[in-house]
Amino acid sequence: MAGQPAQSPWRQRLHEIIYEADTPAGKGFDVTLIICIVTSVIVVMLDSVISIHAEYGSLLKGVEWLFTLIFTIEYILRLLCVLRPWLYMRSFFGLVDLFAILPTFISFLFPGTHYLLNIRILRLLRIFRVLKLAHYLDEAQTLRQALKASSRKISVFLLAVFALVVILGSVMYLIEGPENGFTNIPISVYWAIVTLTTVGYGDIAPVTALGKIVASMIMVIGYGIIAVPTGIVTVELSQAQRRQSNVSTQACPNCSAQDHDLDAIYCKYCGHTL
Amino acid sequence: MAGQPAQSPWRQRLHEIIYEADTPAGKGFDVTLIICIVTSVIVVMLDSVISIHAEYGSLLKGVEWLFTLIFTIEYILRLLCVLRPWLYMRSFFGLVDLFAILPTFISFLFPGTHYLLNIRILRLLRIFRVLKLAHYLDEAQTLRQALKASSRKISVFLLAVFALVVILGSVMYLIEGPENGFTNIPISVYWAIVTLTTVGYGDIAPVTALGKIVASMIMVIGYGIIAVPTGIVTVELSQAQRRQSNVSTQACPNCSAQDHDLDAIYCKYCGHTL
Amino acid sequence: MAGQPAQSPWRQRLHEIIYEADTPAGKGFDVTLIICIVTSVIVVMLDSVISIHAEYGSLLKGVEWLFTLIFTIEYILRLLCVLRPWLYMRSFFGLVDLFAILPTFISFLFPGTHYLLNIRILRLLRIFRVLKLAHYLDEAQTLRQALKASSRKISVFLLAVFALVVILGSVMYLIEGPENGFTNIPISVYWAIVTLTTVGYGDIAPVTALGKIVASMIMVIGYGIIAVPTGIVTVELSQAQRRQSNVSTQACPNCSAQDHDLDAIYCKYCGHTL
Amino acid sequence: MAGQPAQSPWRQRLHEIIYEADTPAGKGFDVTLIICIVTSVIVVMLDSVISIHAEYGSLLKGVEWLFTLIFTIEYILRLLCVLRPWLYMRSFFGLVDLFAILPTFISFLFPGTHYLLNIRILRLLRIFRVLKLAHYLDEAQTLRQALKASSRKISVFLLAVFALVVILGSVMYLIEGPENGFTNIPISVYWAIVTLTTVGYGDIAPVTALGKIVASMIMVIGYGIIAVPTGIVTVELSQAQRRQSNVSTQACPNCSAQDHDLDAIYCKYCGHTL
Repeated sequence: MAGQPAQSPWRQRLHEIIYEADTPAGKGFDVTLIICIVTSVIVVMLDSVISIHAEYGSLLKGVEWLFTLIFTIEYILRLLCVLRPWLYMRSFFGLVDLFAILPTFISFLFPGTHYLLNIRILRLLRIFRVLKLAHYLDEAQTLRQALKASSRKISVFLLAVFALVVILGSVMYLIEGPENGFTNIPISVYWAIVTLTTVGYGDIAPVTALGKIVASMIMVIGYGIIAVPTGIVTVELSQAQRRQSNVSTQACPNCSAQDHDLDAIYCKYCGHTL
Repeated sequence: MAGQPAQSPWRQRLHEIIYEADTPAGKGFDVTLIICIVTSVIVVMLDSVISIHAEYGSLLKGVEWLFTLIFTIEYILRLLCVLRPWLYMRSFFGLVDLFAILPTFISFLFPGTHYLLNIRILRLLRIFRVLKLAHYLDEAQTLRQALKASSRKISVFLLAVFALVVILGSVMYLIEGPENGFTNIPISVYWAIVTLTTVGYGDIAPVTALGKIVASMIMVIGYGIIAVPTGIVTVELSQAQRRQSNVSTQACPNCSAQDHDLDAIYCKYCGHTL
Repeated sequence: MAGQPAQSPWRQRLHEIIYEADTPAGKGFDVTLIICIVTSVIVVMLDSVISIHAEYGSLLKGVEWLFTLIFTIEYILRLLCVLRPWLYMRSFFGLVDLFAILPTFISFLFPGTHYLLNIRILRLLRIFRVLKLAHYLDEAQTLRQALKASSRKISVFLLAVFALVVILGSVMYLIEGPENGFTNIPISVYWAIVTLTTVGYGDIAPVTALGKIVASMIMVIGYGIIAVPTGIVTVELSQAQRRQSNVSTQACPNCSAQDHDLDAIYCKYCGHTL
Repeated sequence: MAGQPAQSPWRQRLHEIIYEADTPAGKGFDVTLIICIVTSVIVVMLDSVISIHAEYGSLLKGVEWLFTLIFTIEYILRLLCVLRPWLYMRSFFGLVDLFAILPTFISFLFPGTHYLLNIRILRLLRIFRVLKLAHYLDEAQTLRQALKASSRKISVFLLAVFALVVILGSVMYLIEGPENGFTNIPISVYWAIVTLTTVGYGDIAPVTALGKIVASMIMVIGYGIIAVPTGIVTVELSQAQRRQSNVSTQACPNCSAQDHDLDAIYCKYCGHTL
């Protein structure tokens, strides 16, 4: 880019390999990285299975250290070959890259935290660039845009749901009481969330007649409430899509008719040149 | 507002602090209030946990009384500084403010009701004003409008679901019977609601082959039925949004008619240029 | 109606009372009917509760017979005062009225069937006429129209779901086998339905690792699949609503622009009279 | 079709019977086939029920072999009477037809696999042709088109959900640990899927306070997340429908361009009157 300080050739070459996927070397690097990420996540998951840990524990620990080493080197290389390392470190992927190696080191102090290494899987979101599927990024863009546009409506909705759940939980605590599994209000609120979201584990369920009536009402409310975020996201997605889609914003200079296709040359109503 | 009787300066000042969030004092008051509400709800919730109640019961009771005292004073001040106290008392927030203090006093007569203090959390809905996020109020407005517009369709839908659930419950009672947990028809109806809303606790589940077939049909019906409120809310939200976004605020200079579309060039009532 | 044979005055009067809700007598009749329906359904439900049956069994049986008698007389009167009794008998409400009294008589032959009396609750759907809420009928109309329009798409969808569920059930039977609760293929298919519809009782749940992987895939599929009927109903509802709503189908005779409001007199684009 | 090699008359006749449903013979063949498919699937399902297998095992095995024989002959006849057998073999229905007979033969080598015969049920999807309901094929077409159009967005969504579920599973494993049923990370991930999709078996449920708080958050997230695929499918369905309903089949007489809107008066490419 113009105006940027010149980089030494090897850093430019490194940047090409690590950050781009157009050259064979770059593509090879990205594919290797994805394989490493998936393998390392699988290793962490297998290590948590007791029977596997008993037999292959030390091997898996070694592999985990190997991957952490690889990712640490990669992280340092990434810092070296970007012009503004600080900007990269604070970016979403920069933070993910950091958190993908930290837990191994921290697990010296707090054993067990190395399971948090699975945050590595977020690195997989890079996959789209490798597959060179720009279209996928477009779709992700549309999704993100729609979710962002609906975030305010969803905040309002969530606050209302939160208030509802606290009140319903308190009421159910009074009705059912500790003898029926509703041990205290926080647990009753937890039950109200489980019910309202239609998850319904069944670890706590109303026993008294009145409790069942109130629970039925909560379920029907939840039934209706689930419609709200769906409606919000659908409407926003529909608008995000329309903005992107093939309807021109241009009006006919002759008859002012709108909604012409992007490739239209003549007005479909009066035949005038657009 | 013009035509209203003049208020004494201190009541005006009080009104400014309590009901508005523009001045530093008003903002401070609102933030303090929100902290008080959240803390008091947490106190009531903790008090219901047996182990915490055993150790800190009297302390929590004291704190609860303190908050009730604070909210009672606040309620009286609110009554004092509005011009029409009666109108405020009957408003949604007026009632919430009253019910947020009543349970403590009632709990003298009926022990346990003080858990209903959690209705206080509804007071949190005031949060939007404090955060001065007028946009959030707009969004809440759109949501409320859409829900109101769809309330009639949802009533029709709920009555049909109610009839369906009573009939399905009776049928399942005949098929499964008391020996399989469907003790009586009300419980069978409760089970039908749990199933139709896809909550599925599993405290009652069909055992016989015929019962499982009917249950499968109920689930598939519920699967289809959940689509209906979602569809209703989505359509109404979409219309509420379109109405907000597509209508110009401009009035016709000739006939003063309003609600013209954004792309309108001529008044649709008198043909005059807008 | 013209061309119909004249009715005797008392049959006309009876028709007015029973089928209309405009006169005080007609309204009184309808309200009484609704109270009778609700009471009789509650009586049948209470009768199924063992403790209540033990104490008030004979009383409830008497009340049930009383209601059946009332509804039988009402059914005969309805037949008497319509011009085409046969048409009424085969109509939806005619059949409901018949099935609302039959179970009591059939319960002589097959004890227990009298619980099917709860089909009476369908008679409550008449409530809309009584409340004179023509708007509600409009809404019900829109809903019915949308559901009818989407019925073909939903049939295609249900057949596909049915095929999917049979195959998934067979696969899970092979993976988990009778020792893990998947006793036979019909029960596995039942489990697949319970999982796909996200009901999830938990009476049967996968135990083996492979079974859990397949189950996870089924859940994610079900997650996506639930979107389909919702999408179908939403789109149809949206179209049904648009057809009813305030957009004229008329095009401007001058510039051919469309989508004018129903009350528009001049084209909003060119100012020409519509 | 022109240019194709002439077929012997009996192969043409066979083709007519097997692949078309217009002649009485063709219709008879198709109806027989559907009955055979349904019966054979029911036979396989019944055979898996232990009590039925004990009594009628050998009979059911015989019937299964009979159906496999019939379907094998049918498969060979289909291969014989098409012009390009290889193309048919690799088509969707060709593969289904093959897999519908293979398991019986394979079950010699691997006992139990004959339950996979239930893949036969996919052959039922042919039912639409038999019922001559071209409309149903249209609807299926619209559905498939909408699902295809949304497949990319859903891939992005599924990858994000997958990453979320792995991370949440790891976190819950750390919080709850093996002593509360979260035996290892793969099982915790399975639990996260069960919760996020609102299935909620309840075979594993959080026990600790922190675990319940995190679980509540997951449920609320899942509640919001379920809105995304629904929104995607709804928007795509809506567009697929609009495309079908809004596009004229008329070509421009001047430039032969197609896909004009139904209300178009002039060709949008050359300005000629349509």
